[in-house]
Amino acid sequence: MKCIALAMGAVLMASTTALAQAPSWTVPAENERCPSKWGAGDERGSGNHMKPQTVLNAVKLIKTGEVIELAYVLGPQMAFFGTRRFDMHMKRTFMNTGSNERGSNEEMVLSEIGQVGTQFDGFAHQSHRNSHYNCFKTDEISTRSGFTKLGIQNTGAFITRGVLIDIAGFKGVEMLGDNYEITVEDIEGALKKQNATLQPGDAVIIHTGWGKLYGKDNPRYVKSCPGIGVKAATWLIAKDPILLGSDNWPVEVAPNPDPQLSLPVHQVALVVNGVHLLENLKLDELVSKQVTEFAFIMQPLKIQGATGSTVSPIAVR
Amino acid sequence: MKCIALAMGAVLMASTTALAQAPSWTVPAENERCPSKWGAGDERGSGNHMKPQTVLNAVKLIKTGEVIELAYVLGPQMAFFGTRRFDMHMKRTFMNTGSNERGSNEEMVLSEIGQVGTQFDGFAHQSHRNSHYNCFKTDEISTRSGFTKLGIQNTGAFITRGVLIDIAGFKGVEMLGDNYEITVEDIEGALKKQNATLQPGDAVIIHTGWGKLYGKDNPRYVKSCPGIGVKAATWLIAKDPILLGSDNWPVEVAPNPDPQLSLPVHQVALVVNGVHLLENLKLDELVSKQVTEFAFIMQPLKIQGATGSTVSPIAVR
Amino acid sequence: MKCIALAMGAVLMASTTALAQAPSWTVPAENERCPSKWGAGDERGSGNHMKPQTVLNAVKLIKTGEVIELAYVLGPQMAFFGTRRFDMHMKRTFMNTGSNERGSNEEMVLSEIGQVGTQFDGFAHQSHRNSHYNCFKTDEISTRSGFTKLGIQNTGAFITRGVLIDIAGFKGVEMLGDNYEITVEDIEGALKKQNATLQPGDAVIIHTGWGKLYGKDNPRYVKSCPGIGVKAATWLIAKDPILLGSDNWPVEVAPNPDPQLSLPVHQVALVVNGVHLLENLKLDELVSKQVTEFAFIMQPLKIQGATGSTVSPIAVR
Amino acid sequence: MKCIALAMGAVLMASTTALAQAPSWTVPAENERCPSKWGAGDERGSGNHMKPQTVLNAVKLIKTGEVIELAYVLGPQMAFFGTRRFDMHMKRTFMNTGSNERGSNEEMVLSEIGQVGTQFDGFAHQSHRNSHYNCFKTDEISTRSGFTKLGIQNTGAFITRGVLIDIAGFKGVEMLGDNYEITVEDIEGALKKQNATLQPGDAVIIHTGWGKLYGKDNPRYVKSCPGIGVKAATWLIAKDPILLGSDNWPVEVAPNPDPQLSLPVHQVALVVNGVHLLENLKLDELVSKQVTEFAFIMQPLKIQGATGSTVSPIAVR
Repeated sequence: MKCIALAMGAVLMASTTALAQAPSWTVPAENERCPSKWGAGDERGSGNHMKPQTVLNAVKLIKTGEVIELAYVLGPQMAFFGTRRFDMHMKRTFMNTGSNERGSNEEMVLSEIGQVGTQFDGFAHQSHRNSHYNCFKTDEISTRSGFTKLGIQNTGAFITRGVLIDIAGFKGVEMLGDNYEITVEDIEGALKKQNATLQPGDAVIIHTGWGKLYGKDNPRYVKSCPGIGVKAATWLIAKDPILLGSDNWPVEVAPNPDPQLSLPVHQVALVVNGVHLLENLKLDELVSKQVTEFAFIMQPLKIQGATGSTVSPIAVR
Repeated sequence: MKCIALAMGAVLMASTTALAQAPSWTVPAENERCPSKWGAGDERGSGNHMKPQTVLNAVKLIKTGEVIELAYVLGPQMAFFGTRRFDMHMKRTFMNTGSNERGSNEEMVLSEIGQVGTQFDGFAHQSHRNSHYNCFKTDEISTRSGFTKLGIQNTGAFITRGVLIDIAGFKGVEMLGDNYEITVEDIEGALKKQNATLQPGDAVIIHTGWGKLYGKDNPRYVKSCPGIGVKAATWLIAKDPILLGSDNWPVEVAPNPDPQLSLPVHQVALVVNGVHLLENLKLDELVSKQVTEFAFIMQPLKIQGATGSTVSPIAVR
Repeated sequence: MKCIALAMGAVLMASTTALAQAPSWTVPAENERCPSKWGAGDERGSGNHMKPQTVLNAVKLIKTGEVIELAYVLGPQMAFFGTRRFDMHMKRTFMNTGSNERGSNEEMVLSEIGQVGTQFDGFAHQSHRNSHYNCFKTDEISTRSGFTKLGIQNTGAFITRGVLIDIAGFKGVEMLGDNYEITVEDIEGALKKQNATLQPGDAVIIHTGWGKLYGKDNPRYVKSCPGIGVKAATWLIAKDPILLGSDNWPVEVAPNPDPQLSLPVHQVALVVNGVHLLENLKLDELVSKQVTEFAFIMQPLKIQGATGSTVSPIAVR
Repeated sequence: MKCIALAMGAVLMASTTALAQAPSWTVPAENERCPSKWGAGDERGSGNHMKPQTVLNAVKLIKTGEVIELAYVLGPQMAFFGTRRFDMHMKRTFMNTGSNERGSNEEMVLSEIGQVGTQFDGFAHQSHRNSHYNCFKTDEISTRSGFTKLGIQNTGAFITRGVLIDIAGFKGVEMLGDNYEITVEDIEGALKKQNATLQPGDAVIIHTGWGKLYGKDNPRYVKSCPGIGVKAATWLIAKDPILLGSDNWPVEVAPNPDPQLSLPVHQVALVVNGVHLLENLKLDELVSKQVTEFAFIMQPLKIQGATGSTVSPIAVR
């Protein structure tokens, strides 16, 4: 009888193990994702889309000259993820010598300037274990004062076609739910409703409505958010955009519905595919004016070796 | 006898006064310069030129889609004026919990971010005694964490016609002299040679050649520089530009030929006329490609209450 | 008729003025408090008490060699007044070249290091209008990088007799009320109960019990506190101490019972009399061990031109 | 003949390899140095010497009450190793509301506060590969905001016997040579000349004279220095001190005479033996007054998780 019991125990254990969930996604092996489609040693990823023709195509969309600002003010209303800061200390006024009695003012800023406000992520920002986009290794490229590869100074200005995918509008709400995962069907439906198609090099911007909380209920804003999941991100990235952006803090749904995964879209985009992310966009004006196609212009600071840059992008039509 | 003594005393005093040099320029009285032509309470000054038509006029100049970057990298080669810093500290990598083993990197930046690198000056930056552009008073508008008026967050993006005035080229040199004052005749001559005229709202950019020293001989770069003086600045500002920019650290000649004056053009532009200044431009590519008219695009960071912003502007043609 | 009207106007004005409460205390006129008893031009104030004899008198009190630490750890539990920080960023480990494979670590600290944690106030910290201790003027001695007079680097080490005045114990409570003003009678009673007298040069330390909240309920800790008022401070200062310290954030009762006054004891001590203040002391061990007389030892950092220093003082017996 | 040639080649290669110098010292294996003599899990190392008796023994040496300061001012004259800073930004004066017109001043300090000025090293500061004192592992105990073990907050105040070993005096010079290695014979000779012996728990302070350059020729001060080497450090550590200190920036000779080693004494002291180091001491007054035995008192800041602390220690006699 004992051996039957043991055997049954083994069967039970085996089925318990089978029940333990494998994660719904894993980072592809290095030899599957490297070298990048942009070439071995490439550091620019989707930024390589920037060509003169990209600029001309974007500029064609400018009809009235109206500029719509897409960034929040870097000020007291800012929402911060984690322990980040934007501390500004105005120095004492300095009165220069001279008969013209010239007073000078300037401020000292202490901030994770690559990762605050409306912020643009580069490829040094994220890794899978020790491996970044195009399989650069963290310990080989990181120093105390910056990354020797993949730094945001490589990016340069983006002038490209911008497409707003209004998911909230498509679903008839002002704001998607606190951790709603946007699906491929949502995106396809919204694009169809907008009569829009995506093109390579697009700045693809997803409206969740979550930005309504920014500066109003920052604790809730950063606690979780609706956004794309791995499937939708993969679908969008297959359209070969220059970036994915959204009006939430990580672009993707957070936390991810799979509790084993920590912000996997960051890896899908930044690590696996070398596609930039643009977070904390201010989309209220774009949405209220129903602008879904526009010239997108963004100038990341050329911070050598940095993981990203706060930015002040615009939509022009 | 008494009256003769008095008279002689007066003569003596007059001649003493005559011997002491009057400064060659003084800031106009408040009632002469305020309210600004843009209106009482205006904080935007020349930024008010930004209108949809300004954008359309600029965009008309874009023919090939070529983007020329006009900013230096914020990195080890930077030239700093005074004690300013751009210190970046890359944080330790954080390995997030999760089966996807996501590594995160970010940096802490400590810098006078409004006044380093290629930098854009706002109107909180300078005053005459206690009085700023449009007669805002320093003690009324300054706080430890920023200015309550005139902050750079008011600026917004600039998309306008850019004109390069190549003074060095006009004078047949690679670089003007260490403290050469650019005259009205220089400007008129260069514009004539370029067959160019200035229009209201232009981003007027002056090539001195001084930028050749940037990152090569920074001590010399910041010690002095060629640039416009009060007369040339006044002439240019009468053309109603959106900004004056140059490839030196103060736009103006430094030190000023009048030893009693401390950077007076900063007051002519920022205090008296509310015209922005743009310093440390990287003009080598623009000059070598002989691009003198272009779409100028610049996105200052929206730092609330700040005196300026480092920027990454571009010329597009 | 005219003079009667005028007279009536005067009467009306006088009665209006009489109805408005005069503040219960004002800073004495400059000619009443300057020069300081320590001499014109003196910058050290009560620190002048430090003499070899002071050290010997303190050391006499050391019987067992037991050291009781009086400072809080500068860490996550800290209570901050206002917007102050103590942000520490551990740099990435640097592996030095060499066969001995030496790894190095260090941290960047961003903090109002003169005014956080257990903190010692100097005389640059506070003024009446523009006038500091010994009538040094703020605009004459302040610069962007520190004060040219009254800096904390003048202080040097203190080794002196320390006296704990246990007011909470005297009143039979663990903690005085949220804004209880300690009176002269409280102090006299506590000293009598302790059979203690104060001597010139003493480090006088007042136990309110408010420290119980430190690290446990920081919002309440910094919102208000019990402490000495102007009368008790004046009485204590007449005993000629080297400093007044307490287990609350301002030493004095806050807010002051007179709503017109903003932390007046700061001025009584630092401005009028040049007596140092020592805030956020950790007194629980001293109190539980009933140590009321001890050698007090404190080493402020010699930060040139600073307003104060975080410190790590001890009681030794 | 071919095989002979090959054989000779092999012999040549072998002898070449043999000629390549083995380093003169290596860090002992983990099982040789861990657990520490202070016990498995111990974080305090030589700080464990602090006992009431240590204090009493030190206090016995206080005869006159004279205090001699051993730290440099944290100010413009400071010498920095590498890229370290001590940047102080005095905030704008804040005028509090209140009839007492109270002005407040404070400063923001940005600094590697554990590793600047007269500085005290803890055990998080250095490792051999991934292994610290008592074999704590860097990746197990390091976080972005500090070390979870070995932090300097564990240290507490030191009051102990201090012994100055005047090597420069022993050798009849004001200052030892730029990279002179102090030998065991030097130390024995100096102690003999001073008629002094070392006791467990001593703060052992070595005078090289190198401090003469501090604030006078900082580039030379930090470029190299005289100091103890591995042999002398080992000899001194066998006397069981609480710390080794010196008037140079690393305590030890730099660079080390063995070009393969990078500051090995840092590992001998901090990693292998858990003995603290104290750098950049100001010894001129101690030396000129010929004080070689004294009460040494030092209060490191209790910075949680930090690698060290700037300090303001004193000698009292």
